[in-house]
Amino acid sequence: MSLVRVHNFAVSLDGFGTGEGQSLETPFGHAGSRLHQWFFPTRAFREMQGEAGGSSGVDDAFAKTWGPGIGVEIMGRNKFGYQRGPWTDEEWKGWWGDNPPFHTPVIVLTHHPRPVIEMAGGTSFHFLDASPAEALDAARELAPGLDVRIGGGASTIRQFLAADLVDQMHVAVVPIVLGRGERLWDGLEELEQRFTIESVSSPSGVTHLTFTREGSSPT
Amino acid sequence: MSLVRVHNFAVSLDGFGTGEGQSLETPFGHAGSRLHQWFFPTRAFREMQGEAGGSSGVDDAFAKTWGPGIGVEIMGRNKFGYQRGPWTDEEWKGWWGDNPPFHTPVIVLTHHPRPVIEMAGGTSFHFLDASPAEALDAARELAPGLDVRIGGGASTIRQFLAADLVDQMHVAVVPIVLGRGERLWDGLEELEQRFTIESVSSPSGVTHLTFTREGSSPT
Repeated sequence: MSLVRVHNFAVSLDGFGTGEGQSLETPFGHAGSRLHQWFFPTRAFREMQGEAGGSSGVDDAFAKTWGPGIGVEIMGRNKFGYQRGPWTDEEWKGWWGDNPPFHTPVIVLTHHPRPVIEMAGGTSFHFLDASPAEALDAARELAPGLDVRIGGGASTIRQFLAADLVDQMHVAVVPIVLGRGERLWDGLEELEQRFTIESVSSPSGVTHLTFTREGSSPT
Repeated sequence: MSLVRVHNFAVSLDGFGTGEGQSLETPFGHAGSRLHQWFFPTRAFREMQGEAGGSSGVDDAFAKTWGPGIGVEIMGRNKFGYQRGPWTDEEWKGWWGDNPPFHTPVIVLTHHPRPVIEMAGGTSFHFLDASPAEALDAARELAPGLDVRIGGGASTIRQFLAADLVDQMHVAVVPIVLGRGERLWDGLEELEQRFTIESVSSPSGVTHLTFTREGSSPT
């Protein structure tokens, strides 16, 4: 059975997965790049960018688990771009550049479907108005037998957690207080009862948490 | 200069320092004892209870720092007891038993002052209607030259942090999602800019965070 996985999702001490005020220039709103300072130096991130070098410590070990086994990603619309409501600019193809780092099909959840966008490097964006369970079915049709990554943002992951559809989750808790934005943990009281949780802190100051759903293990 | 310190303050992943619905039977509301499971087995806690034995690992190392150097504690009224508004039962002397674990003067912040209560073992409860800065002045008069512990709860610590009166803080992040209660981090955006923060996770699953105020060091 293919697994549903979350990787490298960063939250502040106060539980925000992104800041307030997303725009074209500020994908994470007032959070800027503060949630991802631990991630940028890693070898895994630099590889995604097509660059050499990078760190190979604890942060990189977690960052690396992002890709292997994944056949498709599901993301919320705000991870694709800053536009809200009906698409007014279909020329703009999202924040991810001409050769996005996914290299798989990506399902973008939106109430405003539009035609598939084929990008270089194997990434294609599929716009779907669907519940988490429906999106998961569609994902598995796009990549039979492979794992599905829930890419974020916070509200997308929260919805999949609320529907109990996540098997494995890696969250990086960053020691900053954002104060406002979108919270990951809201509405998930007693989430810990469904998961085995481990934590390890890294020299970067980040604490990596892994959530493994009770009873979920690869076959 | 005496330092202002916070120790062993536990919060959930979603930042709650206590649950909802405090009562005589449930000092932490619906959180029950879930925020403190890491603390109870430690040698430090057992000593506070007048018991022998206990663990001596990472959790205990942090728990132990609670006492040394402290001359007085400041706590919010809800850490003393469950009554709200004017005191209707002055016979009840708080949750802490006949021989409270503090063994120092304790300032209880309340809008309803009442006479000092002298307890066995050196603890005395002083009820004060005061701002954080005023309470700190009063604390230093009660224990000249010694450090002041801010004992909690969440809103009391938050007020001292907001007033930039805390020099050192130890927070234990417990991997549970409480969902509701009293948040520690609210209103403290960019708190990290005033502190050096370190983190270490313990085999119990808790992550210990230490906050050291920039420029604060014992003389």
